[in-house]
Amino acid sequence: MGGNTFGNILQLTTFGESHGPAIGGVITGLPAGLNVDTDFVARELARRKPGQSSITTQRKESDSVQFLSGIFEGKTTGTPVGFLIPNEDQRPKDYRHLEKAYRPSHADYTYETKYGIRDYRGGGRSSARETACRVAAGALAKLLLAQHNIRVDAFVSQVGTVKLEKEYTALDLSLTENSIVRCPDEIIAEQMISRIEEVRKQGDSLGGIVTGVIRNVPAGLGEPVFHKLHADLGHAMLGINAVKGFEYGMGFAGTERRGSEVNDIFEKENDKIITRTNFSGGVQGGISNGMDIVFRVAFKPVSTILQAQQSVDEQGNTVDLPARGRHDPCVVPRAVPIVEAMAALVIADHLLLSRTNKL
Amino acid sequence: MGGNTFGNILQLTTFGESHGPAIGGVITGLPAGLNVDTDFVARELARRKPGQSSITTQRKESDSVQFLSGIFEGKTTGTPVGFLIPNEDQRPKDYRHLEKAYRPSHADYTYETKYGIRDYRGGGRSSARETACRVAAGALAKLLLAQHNIRVDAFVSQVGTVKLEKEYTALDLSLTENSIVRCPDEIIAEQMISRIEEVRKQGDSLGGIVTGVIRNVPAGLGEPVFHKLHADLGHAMLGINAVKGFEYGMGFAGTERRGSEVNDIFEKENDKIITRTNFSGGVQGGISNGMDIVFRVAFKPVSTILQAQQSVDEQGNTVDLPARGRHDPCVVPRAVPIVEAMAALVIADHLLLSRTNKL
Amino acid sequence: MGGNTFGNILQLTTFGESHGPAIGGVITGLPAGLNVDTDFVARELARRKPGQSSITTQRKESDSVQFLSGIFEGKTTGTPVGFLIPNEDQRPKDYRHLEKAYRPSHADYTYETKYGIRDYRGGGRSSARETACRVAAGALAKLLLAQHNIRVDAFVSQVGTVKLEKEYTALDLSLTENSIVRCPDEIIAEQMISRIEEVRKQGDSLGGIVTGVIRNVPAGLGEPVFHKLHADLGHAMLGINAVKGFEYGMGFAGTERRGSEVNDIFEKENDKIITRTNFSGGVQGGISNGMDIVFRVAFKPVSTILQAQQSVDEQGNTVDLPARGRHDPCVVPRAVPIVEAMAALVIADHLLLSRTNKL
Amino acid sequence: MGGNTFGNILQLTTFGESHGPAIGGVITGLPAGLNVDTDFVARELARRKPGQSSITTQRKESDSVQFLSGIFEGKTTGTPVGFLIPNEDQRPKDYRHLEKAYRPSHADYTYETKYGIRDYRGGGRSSARETACRVAAGALAKLLLAQHNIRVDAFVSQVGTVKLEKEYTALDLSLTENSIVRCPDEIIAEQMISRIEEVRKQGDSLGGIVTGVIRNVPAGLGEPVFHKLHADLGHAMLGINAVKGFEYGMGFAGTERRGSEVNDIFEKENDKIITRTNFSGGVQGGISNGMDIVFRVAFKPVSTILQAQQSVDEQGNTVDLPARGRHDPCVVPRAVPIVEAMAALVIADHLLLSRTNKL
Repeated sequence: MGGNTFGNILQLTTFGESHGPAIGGVITGLPAGLNVDTDFVARELARRKPGQSSITTQRKESDSVQFLSGIFEGKTTGTPVGFLIPNEDQRPKDYRHLEKAYRPSHADYTYETKYGIRDYRGGGRSSARETACRVAAGALAKLLLAQHNIRVDAFVSQVGTVKLEKEYTALDLSLTENSIVRCPDEIIAEQMISRIEEVRKQGDSLGGIVTGVIRNVPAGLGEPVFHKLHADLGHAMLGINAVKGFEYGMGFAGTERRGSEVNDIFEKENDKIITRTNFSGGVQGGISNGMDIVFRVAFKPVSTILQAQQSVDEQGNTVDLPARGRHDPCVVPRAVPIVEAMAALVIADHLLLSRTNKL
Repeated sequence: MGGNTFGNILQLTTFGESHGPAIGGVITGLPAGLNVDTDFVARELARRKPGQSSITTQRKESDSVQFLSGIFEGKTTGTPVGFLIPNEDQRPKDYRHLEKAYRPSHADYTYETKYGIRDYRGGGRSSARETACRVAAGALAKLLLAQHNIRVDAFVSQVGTVKLEKEYTALDLSLTENSIVRCPDEIIAEQMISRIEEVRKQGDSLGGIVTGVIRNVPAGLGEPVFHKLHADLGHAMLGINAVKGFEYGMGFAGTERRGSEVNDIFEKENDKIITRTNFSGGVQGGISNGMDIVFRVAFKPVSTILQAQQSVDEQGNTVDLPARGRHDPCVVPRAVPIVEAMAALVIADHLLLSRTNKL
Repeated sequence: MGGNTFGNILQLTTFGESHGPAIGGVITGLPAGLNVDTDFVARELARRKPGQSSITTQRKESDSVQFLSGIFEGKTTGTPVGFLIPNEDQRPKDYRHLEKAYRPSHADYTYETKYGIRDYRGGGRSSARETACRVAAGALAKLLLAQHNIRVDAFVSQVGTVKLEKEYTALDLSLTENSIVRCPDEIIAEQMISRIEEVRKQGDSLGGIVTGVIRNVPAGLGEPVFHKLHADLGHAMLGINAVKGFEYGMGFAGTERRGSEVNDIFEKENDKIITRTNFSGGVQGGISNGMDIVFRVAFKPVSTILQAQQSVDEQGNTVDLPARGRHDPCVVPRAVPIVEAMAALVIADHLLLSRTNKL
Repeated sequence: MGGNTFGNILQLTTFGESHGPAIGGVITGLPAGLNVDTDFVARELARRKPGQSSITTQRKESDSVQFLSGIFEGKTTGTPVGFLIPNEDQRPKDYRHLEKAYRPSHADYTYETKYGIRDYRGGGRSSARETACRVAAGALAKLLLAQHNIRVDAFVSQVGTVKLEKEYTALDLSLTENSIVRCPDEIIAEQMISRIEEVRKQGDSLGGIVTGVIRNVPAGLGEPVFHKLHADLGHAMLGINAVKGFEYGMGFAGTERRGSEVNDIFEKENDKIITRTNFSGGVQGGISNGMDIVFRVAFKPVSTILQAQQSVDEQGNTVDLPARGRHDPCVVPRAVPIVEAMAALVIADHLLLSRTNKL
């Protein structure tokens, strides 16, 4: 039940601070016999790593994962998969000035209050660097899901006020990786990139939205009444740094509609029961219904900006924070693989849980 | 870890179907020595019960809770609190026609697929009737929070397209209960009620939004990185029937802002460190910062409508569902106490967890 | 994780005090589609109930269980099974004298210290009455195991110094229920009964041992390294009232042996890999190996005796406790169905868990 | 709930195989602010490491632990403590002959059956090497307990048929480490050592018993009815490799006694309520009563012996296993720090849990 463990059957426990020797984790409950494609894992991590393009932070990390256990002759053995991702680009001196100051809208103040002590270097445990562990674990979950033909895709659908208005069904999601902003629509992608570059020059940051689509999920996943599939997905997404909101299916927009407009009518298609529309977003009563699962995740503009700001120290004295450091002007492009990873962990966990539903 | 248990230290397990003899639950982890005000519990249940006003379903249930254990001479003893809420207004015959049909956007199809069997009477386990148990447990959590001066309030901020645009700080939340729609602004409340009545006459339903505000939460609650306070709150809200989205602080609207606009600047006020603004919604890095916790929960228009609809049966044959039954044209007024109850359970649980953070 | 919940997938949460209106519980994670034989459940409860024979306490309880949910048309639906067992023979006045005194070797002092309050009537939550809930839940687990041909049997193998020296393989376990002391050897059973009657006349109590045998468990159950099958069995047994020890396979006696004497040699028999001997007790490396699982549970002489004893009150003042009340001179005959129930819950839980071990 | 995670608030998750690059783990829930004495941790690991004396296996491992996170400037920060213990003396070739054979009374057959795959090198995950992680984590738990003056000690009380008959109260436990067999009685220790050396020459192995004593535990720890303090202790001990039994207080011997003989009479001593005798072993009703907690753990003779043995391969064909490898003729001396570590983890976890018992 600790705050650093995620999942029920398939569990991920992570550890590590931004500027310690390494971050890492333990994945338990992965079924035995899964082929571990380490190249795939490396590619997933490369999608998240800093310094990958001109619109991300320039911190340099190769983010190479070392698997220490649970894999034998290329296959999972059912025992825990321990792994490490060394921290390479440690510049703890960059953070000495933060020892006694709370950066606005960061976790400095709350960690200090909660624990009475904090590793102030680069945000310590609260740094988004920890999410690399989630991407590594999520890659294994994706390999498990691939065995069942389940596919998890995410893409950037909004950066600041630049919005991709098309439905995901009108997009070719295989194009997402073609763009450094991870938007599958070429024209909107260019607009997003321009906006990010503009804001970066100002030392400021932008928020945005990542849309997730999960296809080929069998009907029957989800554990009502408290672990409904969408509730666990939302929980997973809200645990990602900088996330302020989650919605699935018709989401917030559905609050303005009438039931008669948005009820999804069942029909039979090729011997399969489907729904004519998918306002439900693939989940009904907390259980997957076999349709695509669609959700959106809202990211705030990251709090680290390259502008001087005012704050207080531990005694509450006013201090001036200078404009320095490295930062992501907009995290959503790098958040795409994190969203996919967390979604994959949730679906894989529920897939395993569902094996116990019937006699 | 089962789907019917919620929480870590303070745990609620619920059971019961809409048309069985009773619903109920067990609350464990409630500290010993708490005075149980059973009148307060009854009042909370009355806020959720059906038939309470002209704009809710006319199903009649007194929703009286019977405590069976864990309370001795008016105080909690630290042992499990078992409780029952008898089902009174059972009309299983009303549902015989649903034995072989899946109502659109209900949980009929997914339960059947998941378990291979379902209690089709009134939605069985998927009925929102189960939330009465959450309100009962939440009432005890509220009593615990009251010991720490923590106050949980929710209100209706949107019904269909009728929106309460004022910030909660400009409202008097003590007026919420004065209105049957549970909106503290008298004028907007009237508009909401009119809209609901109009839609009810059409046998249709409306969605809406419930806003939650939690005050006097001490800084330090929340368990990063996977059980951040807002992630657990979101998880709790997304587990409520008909919820399609959750946001806190600046939420989805924050995706359009810049970091320099929405960073919450710390300052000292009366020997206490506060933030000048509260775009963070009372949570930073997943941990409460002592400011008000503010969140919004999106409810879809309920799927039960009094209009004829098409569907399929278990073999996929097309069937026509007649327009009959009882329904809530808009669930958000009755959802207010449920939102409060789930929020109270989350905060109380994290309050207890936080006792173990330091030496 | 609470102290009142047991199991991983198949979970039992119990509530209730000895002299409240009812005890009860919730069983979650039971697969859907199981036929619930309520007569069988009643028979199991009758094996545990007080007043069943001349050698048990004369408290009168019919111990009839009421299922409130999770069962539809005779089958489990996959949703929680809530149940109640009303308390009938409540004589709270009998316990008024204990309000201010701690009975020797009871839980009065420790509950008071832990919680600062206690329901002193009949031991409250610490009463063995709670185990009726375990027997009810265990009966459902037995029905699940029966689907897999797994059989759980226990019997009394020692009462005070009267010991059944024969190996279980030399006994006919179907005779266990023929004797009120639940020993399948008629001659030893008579000796045990005489010893219990003798001690009862003296107002004293006796300890004893219950042996458990679980047959037809498939190889592969158990979750090393912390939830080894025997560790979870031991945990379950040590949670039963009055238990002071647990051993499996060669147990404590094995400490005096040499490896070369007790290593179980594998061989093939009828296309199945078996072991020639079973010093391992059916579990190797924490995982079942397909052989019979054999274990022994040590019960102390119950602390409730009909003799005057000295004690202290809450202020530590010496008080004299009179010799009165009702008691079981030896609990082991009534413990047999409790041991079986807990064993069945553990095996059923691990059977479900094992479904997730492989791709 | 995974099999590789232990504890409730204070949790240990371990990973690693005998012959992979490293073993390790993650400790979560350790309160912030604890001084981490790394020399103490190293000394604890040295007590468990192979090759420490003439009576243990000669495998050479320095067993040095590397802490990777959760400690800042010498203190715990409340975030997860990740750690590694590299495997140094890997000789996988030694095990090539076991790829296709199941060693008697080892976990080879059961792991293969459960997972369909196994790392056969040195027992893989089932190797007792994993317990080094428990000792490392237990050392931190001991440091936490030391803040509360709680002391955990274990010692060898039996090797084969050589038994230490004295009560622990008649021994000076500070002498335990003076003897390579970890028995605090010099004369019995010599007998034990002789017996082990004799058996080692024969390539055989011996069982034994470790006794544990925990002093200064406050009254009030333990979570009935399923997580009674002794049940969690027993669970922890039964999870240690080669353990076949657990008893506490009067244990199995108590089954032959009468209640009037073994009821522990309360009395007041120096303003504290104590019991005159301690047949209860420091736990009553599953909750500590402030007296010493005393328990005994039975270890079988280890299955690895240097004698030729018969077995079968995966097809059930008879194979002859040659007499080779390195082994511990008797594991109990090296088990002493493991028993202490697991006991410390249990008590520390319950100490933290108990903070939530009262308002």
